[in-house]
Amino acid sequence: MKTLRRALFIGRFQPFHNGHLYAIKYILSEFDEVVVVIAAAQYNYTVENPFTAGERVEMIKRGLGELYMRSYIIPVDNIPSNYLWPRHVLERTPRIEVVFSNNKLVQELFEAYGVTTKNTPILPGVSGTSVRRLMAEGGDWRSLVPRSVVDFIEEIRGVERVKTLWGLAVKIPGERL
Amino acid sequence: MKTLRRALFIGRFQPFHNGHLYAIKYILSEFDEVVVVIAAAQYNYTVENPFTAGERVEMIKRGLGELYMRSYIIPVDNIPSNYLWPRHVLERTPRIEVVFSNNKLVQELFEAYGVTTKNTPILPGVSGTSVRRLMAEGGDWRSLVPRSVVDFIEEIRGVERVKTLWGLAVKIPGERL
Amino acid sequence: MKTLRRALFIGRFQPFHNGHLYAIKYILSEFDEVVVVIAAAQYNYTVENPFTAGERVEMIKRGLGELYMRSYIIPVDNIPSNYLWPRHVLERTPRIEVVFSNNKLVQELFEAYGVTTKNTPILPGVSGTSVRRLMAEGGDWRSLVPRSVVDFIEEIRGVERVKTLWGLAVKIPGERL
Amino acid sequence: MKTLRRALFIGRFQPFHNGHLYAIKYILSEFDEVVVVIAAAQYNYTVENPFTAGERVEMIKRGLGELYMRSYIIPVDNIPSNYLWPRHVLERTPRIEVVFSNNKLVQELFEAYGVTTKNTPILPGVSGTSVRRLMAEGGDWRSLVPRSVVDFIEEIRGVERVKTLWGLAVKIPGERL
Amino acid sequence: MKTLRRALFIGRFQPFHNGHLYAIKYILSEFDEVVVVIAAAQYNYTVENPFTAGERVEMIKRGLGELYMRSYIIPVDNIPSNYLWPRHVLERTPRIEVVFSNNKLVQELFEAYGVTTKNTPILPGVSGTSVRRLMAEGGDWRSLVPRSVVDFIEEIRGVERVKTLWGLAVKIPGERL
Amino acid sequence: MKTLRRALFIGRFQPFHNGHLYAIKYILSEFDEVVVVIAAAQYNYTVENPFTAGERVEMIKRGLGELYMRSYIIPVDNIPSNYLWPRHVLERTPRIEVVFSNNKLVQELFEAYGVTTKNTPILPGVSGTSVRRLMAEGGDWRSLVPRSVVDFIEEIRGVERVKTLWGLAVKIPGERL
Repeated sequence: MKTLRRALFIGRFQPFHNGHLYAIKYILSEFDEVVVVIAAAQYNYTVENPFTAGERVEMIKRGLGELYMRSYIIPVDNIPSNYLWPRHVLERTPRIEVVFSNNKLVQELFEAYGVTTKNTPILPGVSGTSVRRLMAEGGDWRSLVPRSVVDFIEEIRGVERVKTLWGLAVKIPGERL
Repeated sequence: MKTLRRALFIGRFQPFHNGHLYAIKYILSEFDEVVVVIAAAQYNYTVENPFTAGERVEMIKRGLGELYMRSYIIPVDNIPSNYLWPRHVLERTPRIEVVFSNNKLVQELFEAYGVTTKNTPILPGVSGTSVRRLMAEGGDWRSLVPRSVVDFIEEIRGVERVKTLWGLAVKIPGERL
Repeated sequence: MKTLRRALFIGRFQPFHNGHLYAIKYILSEFDEVVVVIAAAQYNYTVENPFTAGERVEMIKRGLGELYMRSYIIPVDNIPSNYLWPRHVLERTPRIEVVFSNNKLVQELFEAYGVTTKNTPILPGVSGTSVRRLMAEGGDWRSLVPRSVVDFIEEIRGVERVKTLWGLAVKIPGERL
Repeated sequence: MKTLRRALFIGRFQPFHNGHLYAIKYILSEFDEVVVVIAAAQYNYTVENPFTAGERVEMIKRGLGELYMRSYIIPVDNIPSNYLWPRHVLERTPRIEVVFSNNKLVQELFEAYGVTTKNTPILPGVSGTSVRRLMAEGGDWRSLVPRSVVDFIEEIRGVERVKTLWGLAVKIPGERL
Repeated sequence: MKTLRRALFIGRFQPFHNGHLYAIKYILSEFDEVVVVIAAAQYNYTVENPFTAGERVEMIKRGLGELYMRSYIIPVDNIPSNYLWPRHVLERTPRIEVVFSNNKLVQELFEAYGVTTKNTPILPGVSGTSVRRLMAEGGDWRSLVPRSVVDFIEEIRGVERVKTLWGLAVKIPGERL
Repeated sequence: MKTLRRALFIGRFQPFHNGHLYAIKYILSEFDEVVVVIAAAQYNYTVENPFTAGERVEMIKRGLGELYMRSYIIPVDNIPSNYLWPRHVLERTPRIEVVFSNNKLVQELFEAYGVTTKNTPILPGVSGTSVRRLMAEGGDWRSLVPRSVVDFIEEIRGVERVKTLWGLAVKIPGERL
């Protein structure tokens, strides 16, 4: 069996949107498999991170459809040390050749390990922040998200959750109570 | 789209062996999808836990073959509180209906959450401990492990690692130095 | 012995004030016992959390007077996962039927466990933030706090501490040094 | 108001038994109030620590009866550093004068902080270990435990839990799976 | 051998600058030895904390030159509890008599342990923040830092790192992704 | 300034003994500087780890004498992941070329990072375990430890501490209470 060529792709996926899917399709046009790392896995039910790691896993698998056969989806907690973080990610993921990220710090941190990094193409105007804002303000978030992910978010009443969190954030920054 | 029926299956997978595959095939004969939870994800390079979480993810995907399309593979760290642990697992996994485990404590802990638990059929004589012992002592571990997983373990020189750790365990119980 | 009807009440109690006492009296008019959870127990000597968990325990017991016989006072650390947090609280508290809180997120998180939540009546104009501000700025905080708690705060020189922390916050947001 | 004289008493209370009650009565014959610290609060559903912190709080309050009015019950997690541990306890408890313990290490650790320590009188033959063993083996544990605590343990089906854990311990030392 | 008189000096040393050296020389004119504590040791590759603990150790030893023979350099992680923190520092450092700090909270926290605290003389206009800002904006940071530390920072390409982080901070406050 | 050649040496130093000094002298005959890592820094007042990290720092500096000018002494906590651990050590230490250790696992873990490892010469019959046993049993431990370290241990009444802990270990394995 020949060795599979594999790349890593990191995001928070709050929620999984068309920009993520676009990037993964691009990566899978160049590599055999992609390892999708869900960062900040320990956070949930906050303004920035409304969905749990498990919900994010489920929406990504749905969003990937048949591409899932060539993908891994791995939740990884954030840790305090940036220097240590790439090794923490690599501890929990299959062997990879390249890391795809447009974040310059992520690139630098992985390159310190001798891992090659590359930019991903982006869809203008689509970001997790913009999707959450549209959810909170009653805008058209559905057109920015794969159809199967829209269904999932509605099944778990995700829009109501984002709205609740959005309102609280204004009054209670930082701490829960 | 009809709701998928999904079950949870938990193990340490040190390494993934024929008994695990047998149980997962059984679960997938009853359910649409299976969530494979890699417990004790934070441990590695010890006698009981020689392989990293990432290596375990990779060997399970290989071992599952086509069944992977109906599976999730999620590493989850152990935590000190047993009472809290099922919720910690559910936080990081897609929604499930049933937990498969032959461990009576695991069953009791999940049932305290109202989750149904079931026993899995077992292959006599196949366990992680027996596979690691055969590796360490030069016995026939290959017949207890799927062919693709044998290949993977040899690629990463896993037998040498188990042997090194096995020897150290006798001399240095508990602490690294 | 008949089963006691018990409710949970959560706050940071920085410090315990008349609004807290008012809510607890209301809860004890409906329930046999109240479990008072001190949230954010691990924080102290900060602008938002000037008092240690132990100091908060002591001031609440004093403030409750004879009502203490029907109360529990339990410090609980904050944890990163909101989804996990209600179970973390329930692990450390006696069995309860209802959670009292006016915080919509707290309500939602506990209801996801099947726990009923209710609003508490509030005293207008009394909050931990307003008491701390009055302490820092030399205003009349004493009228917002039970007499026995005023005495306690003066015994431990609490006002001086709040003033020191208040000044530092302006200059050194976030980190200690 | 004169200052209350207060002492600290530490145990795991797995479960609360007549020896604990005997020691607390003795302490309250000398001091105005006692602070009962539940050590190892984060552990539960194990052979050594079958009951959760919340269950231990509830059984101690029941066992104390009217003495509760002069008591505090505070769960405290274990931490890795023994040197740091007394300060960790004092952070979460009201001010105390004396620590009661028959454990020589506990005495030494607190004395390093300038805290006086004293021995408690003991009831021969009564210990947490002996109570749990009698539970597991079907012996007469009820005579070693206050009547109200017996009732509580039966309400939560505690004996069945201890039996389940006792059996597992033989087969699975150390790790959950 | 007579007992050495020893003092503690705490900073983040991001990076070690002339103000730090000035304070240490002052301390060593009064004491036999100085314990230099690197606070916030677990943070690195952030705007406020660009350098790792190991890099900070190396630059401080270089900056001290011959004074190193009378110095200790100890990295210490931040912890959530301010009340516990001085004991956490003392656990990891040799015995000291006095803590030097101009931070009023640090003074108060150590004095609660009975440790004497003193102010250090300061060099006007030199602070970690000002040095990092000059690095990021292409200003003259070299004149504020000992020559040997300038060399070290250039060897590890520290200015480039500070510039990368400075830019990201504007766009991505708080979280890595 | 030419680049210094630097090596890493790891131990628990419970306590620092002649074998450690012998190894460090050997390393400093080949390298310009040595980084002495105190492993298991978070443990203290246990049978295996009687001395705090700070006490170990102090005894090592004393034991090194003039060699200290060419040495670093860095306490590092143990972490659960062996795979991550070398990076955790390197985060907190100056840049090094070689790691000296006779432990085969330590060698393998560092070599996975591309770091060269070498064996150290050993003094037969001298180990931390043997020194602690002699302390506990009233034997001649002083001849196995540098004179200045003997003095330090006596100043802090270290032998009494080891004896207390030794006795407790027999009765209370594992947990503090």
